[in-house]
Amino acid sequence: LNTSGLLTDYYEINMMCGYHENGMADRTAVFDLFIRTTPFGGGYAINAGLEAAVHFLTNVSFSDEDVAYLRNTSDFSESFLDRLREFRFAGDVFAAPEGSLVFPQEPILRVTGTLFETQLVESALLNIINFQTLIATKAARTTFAAGENKVLEFGLRRAQGQDGAFSATRAAFIGGVEGTSNTYAASMLDIPAMGTMAHSWIMSFKNELEAFRAYASTFPKSCVLLVDTINTLKSGVPNAITVGHEMREKGEELMGIRLDSGDLAYLGRKAREMLDEAGLNSTKIVASGDLDEWLIEDLQRQGAVIDMWGVGTQLVVGGKEGALGGVYKLASIERDGTIIPTMKVSDNPYKETLPGIKQVWRLYNDKGEMEADIIALESEDIGQRYKDGFMGFHPRLEYQKKHFYPASVRCMLHKVIEDGKQILDLPSLHQIRAFAKEELDRLHPTSKRLLNPHFYKVSISEELLHLRQNLRNGISGLE
Amino acid sequence: LNTSGLLTDYYEINMMCGYHENGMADRTAVFDLFIRTTPFGGGYAINAGLEAAVHFLTNVSFSDEDVAYLRNTSDFSESFLDRLREFRFAGDVFAAPEGSLVFPQEPILRVTGTLFETQLVESALLNIINFQTLIATKAARTTFAAGENKVLEFGLRRAQGQDGAFSATRAAFIGGVEGTSNTYAASMLDIPAMGTMAHSWIMSFKNELEAFRAYASTFPKSCVLLVDTINTLKSGVPNAITVGHEMREKGEELMGIRLDSGDLAYLGRKAREMLDEAGLNSTKIVASGDLDEWLIEDLQRQGAVIDMWGVGTQLVVGGKEGALGGVYKLASIERDGTIIPTMKVSDNPYKETLPGIKQVWRLYNDKGEMEADIIALESEDIGQRYKDGFMGFHPRLEYQKKHFYPASVRCMLHKVIEDGKQILDLPSLHQIRAFAKEELDRLHPTSKRLLNPHFYKVSISEELLHLRQNLRNGISGLE
Repeated sequence: LNTSGLLTDYYEINMMCGYHENGMADRTAVFDLFIRTTPFGGGYAINAGLEAAVHFLTNVSFSDEDVAYLRNTSDFSESFLDRLREFRFAGDVFAAPEGSLVFPQEPILRVTGTLFETQLVESALLNIINFQTLIATKAARTTFAAGENKVLEFGLRRAQGQDGAFSATRAAFIGGVEGTSNTYAASMLDIPAMGTMAHSWIMSFKNELEAFRAYASTFPKSCVLLVDTINTLKSGVPNAITVGHEMREKGEELMGIRLDSGDLAYLGRKAREMLDEAGLNSTKIVASGDLDEWLIEDLQRQGAVIDMWGVGTQLVVGGKEGALGGVYKLASIERDGTIIPTMKVSDNPYKETLPGIKQVWRLYNDKGEMEADIIALESEDIGQRYKDGFMGFHPRLEYQKKHFYPASVRCMLHKVIEDGKQILDLPSLHQIRAFAKEELDRLHPTSKRLLNPHFYKVSISEELLHLRQNLRNGISGLE
Repeated sequence: LNTSGLLTDYYEINMMCGYHENGMADRTAVFDLFIRTTPFGGGYAINAGLEAAVHFLTNVSFSDEDVAYLRNTSDFSESFLDRLREFRFAGDVFAAPEGSLVFPQEPILRVTGTLFETQLVESALLNIINFQTLIATKAARTTFAAGENKVLEFGLRRAQGQDGAFSATRAAFIGGVEGTSNTYAASMLDIPAMGTMAHSWIMSFKNELEAFRAYASTFPKSCVLLVDTINTLKSGVPNAITVGHEMREKGEELMGIRLDSGDLAYLGRKAREMLDEAGLNSTKIVASGDLDEWLIEDLQRQGAVIDMWGVGTQLVVGGKEGALGGVYKLASIERDGTIIPTMKVSDNPYKETLPGIKQVWRLYNDKGEMEADIIALESEDIGQRYKDGFMGFHPRLEYQKKHFYPASVRCMLHKVIEDGKQILDLPSLHQIRAFAKEELDRLHPTSKRLLNPHFYKVSISEELLHLRQNLRNGISGLE
C-alpha cells in the first residue's frame, strides 16, 4: 500500500494550504465516513478496508520528492511546504470493526484531528473503504445466492488494476468466498488459491482425452477437468469419465469437472447424470462464465446441480455498480475555541448530513437478532439507558418514531487510533470473515434477499434529532 | 507495479507444472490478446496499458518466498519449483502502440515463447490491458461528448483501489482528459493536478462569503469557488460575484465557480447570466456530480453553459461496464517440432478464435481516413500487395466479402520485446495522448457517436479465411 501524502485529491492540498495561510490549520475537526445507500439494491453493506485505512493513517507522509513536486504545481508558501515535510497524522479514529454490517447514514469511521490532517486523508480513506466495502457486500450476496454451495473468486484478469484485484480478493473473502484464483493475493492474505486448467491446456495436446490424462497424471489428488473446449456432453464429459475410470483403477478419484460456457442448468444436470451413471458420484461440478448473484440464484432455482461457482468479473468489479458512494463529511468544527456541531444543509434532503460527535448502537432482541441501529450523540449513554427503553426517529421522516426496548445493545464504533497511533489490535482476515458471517446470521433473512429486501431500521436519537433541527433553523445552518 | 510471478491465476501455475511434468514446457506457443466487443456499445476501443505490460514482462520473476509459498500449496515437484526460481520471460511480443484505436477480433498483443512462459503471463497482461483500455475508451467518449469543453478526472475516492485510481488516471489522460484530482498520479505521470475546495471548506468558516474571501486571498491566480453548499443561486453565486468584484479591485480575476449538484443545465445558464450581468464574463463555470458521457452530451444539447466538466466515478470505474472482456487465446503451438496454427472451435461461433500467426493492417483512403482493418497472416505481404487491391472477408459471415483498394496501409503490430528484452522505445504519455487524438481524427464521425455507432469494418484475409476453414473441418479442430 502506497502511503504518500500525495495520495489525495488536489483540492485537499489546496484547502490545507488555505487553512494554513488563514490560521485555521490547527482547529479541531470531526469527519464522519458513511454510505448514503446500500449497494446493489440490497439491504445491507459489509464494512471492509479498515486494515488498509489504519495502515495508511499511521504511515502517511510526504517525501522530499513529494514536496518538491507540489512546489512546482502552484504558489504554495514555503511555510506550508515545511509543514507538509513534517506531516504525520496525529488524530483519533473510531471505526466499526471490519466485517460489520453497516447501513446508510451511520458513521463507519469517525476521524478527529486538526482540520489540516483530517482534510488530507479524506480521499485515501474513501478510496480504500468504498471499494472493499462494495466488494465484500457483493461477495456476501453471491455466497447467499449460492446457499450451501461454495463460491470461488476468479476475477484477476478483469479486475481494475493490480490493487483492484488484490483488494477485491481480500474483500470477497470477507464476504464469504472460499478461495481465489489470484495467487499473489492468496499468498499475501493466507487464503486458498484455486484453479485448474484453461482451454489452452486442451489445445496444447493432440486431443482432449490426452490433455485430460496428462493433467490427471500430474495432479491425481486435485484433478478438475475443463469439459467445454470442444463439446461438453459429446466430448468433454465422456472423456472426463474415461479418465475418471482410469484414475479409479489406480486408486485415485476424479475430483471434478468444470463447465465454462453454455446452459449451465441443462449441462450441469446432464453432466451429473452422466457422472452418476458412470459411478463417479463423488466427482464435483464446478461452473464458471460471467456469473453473478442473480444468475446463480436463478440457476439454483432451476435445479442446476453445481457444487461450486467460480465468479470473476461481476464479483471483483461490483457488476453494474462499480463504486460505492461513501462520503466523508464534516460533523463538528472548532470555532472560537469550542468544538461545535455542524452540518451540510441542502435543497436535497438526501444530502443533508448528521451533525455532532456520534456513536452508533446496534439493538438486539432477546433471540440475539438485530432489531435496529440507532445513531446517537456520543455524549448520550445509550449503553445504560437502553434498559428503560428509548425513542428513535426515522432519519429523514422525522414524524416517524418508535419506542425501542432492546434485550441488549452493542456499541459499533471503537477507538482504533489515538494521537496517530494504532491502539487496538486488528483481527486476522479469517476472524473478520467469521465475524461477517456472524453478523449476517443475526440479520433477518428478509433483509438479506437479493430483490426488494426489507430495509433494516436505522433511527436517530431524540437528542440528535433536536440538534439537527436547531442547526437547520439556524442561519444557513452554518452559524 | 508488482512484478511477482505469483500475479497470475493459480491455474496458470498448475498448467505450467503440467507442461513441465509432461515434457511440453519448452514447446513454442503463440497467444493473441484481443477484445471480442467494443465497450459501452461504442464503435471503437483505445489501446492502453502497454507500458505497464512491457514492464511486467521484462521484470516478472519468482522470489524465494514466492517459491516457498507455492511449495506449500500443492504437490509441485522440486524440479518445477527450481524452474520457477530461475524464471524470466524470454519470449517475443508484438503490440499495437498505446493510443491506437483497436477493434474486436484483431490482436492487440501477440506473445510468442515457450508454453511455460506464455501461459504464466496471461493473467497479468489481461489485468493491465483490459482495465486501461476500458478507461481510455470511456475517457475518449466523455471528451467527445464534451466537444470543445474540457474534461477533468476526479475519480480517486470512488476508484477501485489505489491502482484502480492510478491506472484510471493514466488511461483517462490517454483518452483525452485535461488533468486529474489524483495528486500522486499527477506527480508520477507528469500531468496537471487540479481541484479547488470541498463543502467542508465552506463549513469550516463562519459563513460562505468569509470562506470565499479566504480562498481568494490564498489563491488569487486560481480561484474557483464552490457555490452549492447552501443555495447555488441565492447564496453561492451572489457571494462569488461579491468576491469577484473585490478581486478585480485588487487587479485579480475570479477564475471560476463550481456547481456540484442540482440541475446543471438550469443552474449553469442562470449562473452564467448572473456572472455576465456582474461583468465577470471571463469567470468560467465548472460542473461536477455523477456525470458521464451521456449526461454531458444531454446537458450540452440543452445549452448548459459549462466550460469544464469534472467527471469522477463513472469515468474511473467504467460506469455500468466495469470490465473489458479482453481474452488471451492460443493461436499456434509447436507439435512434433513444427509450429502449427490452432483455434478454439466452439458451439458458439462468437467464441471461435482466429488461428495462426497474424498481423493487422489498417487501410486508409486517399484523404487519410480509416477505411477498414484487415487481419491477415503474418506471412502475407499486405504491405506490398495492397497496391493491387485485395479481397477481405467478414470475420463471421464468410459470404460477405469486399474488394479493398486502399490509398495507404499501416502495419499495426510492432515488435516491442525480443527474447525477453525491450527493443523498442515507448512513447511518453503525452505522445500517446496525442497519438490517440490523431487516431480518433482519422475515424469517421459516425463511428464515434455514443449511440448506435457505425461499426468500423474489420475483415480477414482470404488466406486466413482458408486456414480457419481447413482447421474447422479438421478433427475437432485440434488435430
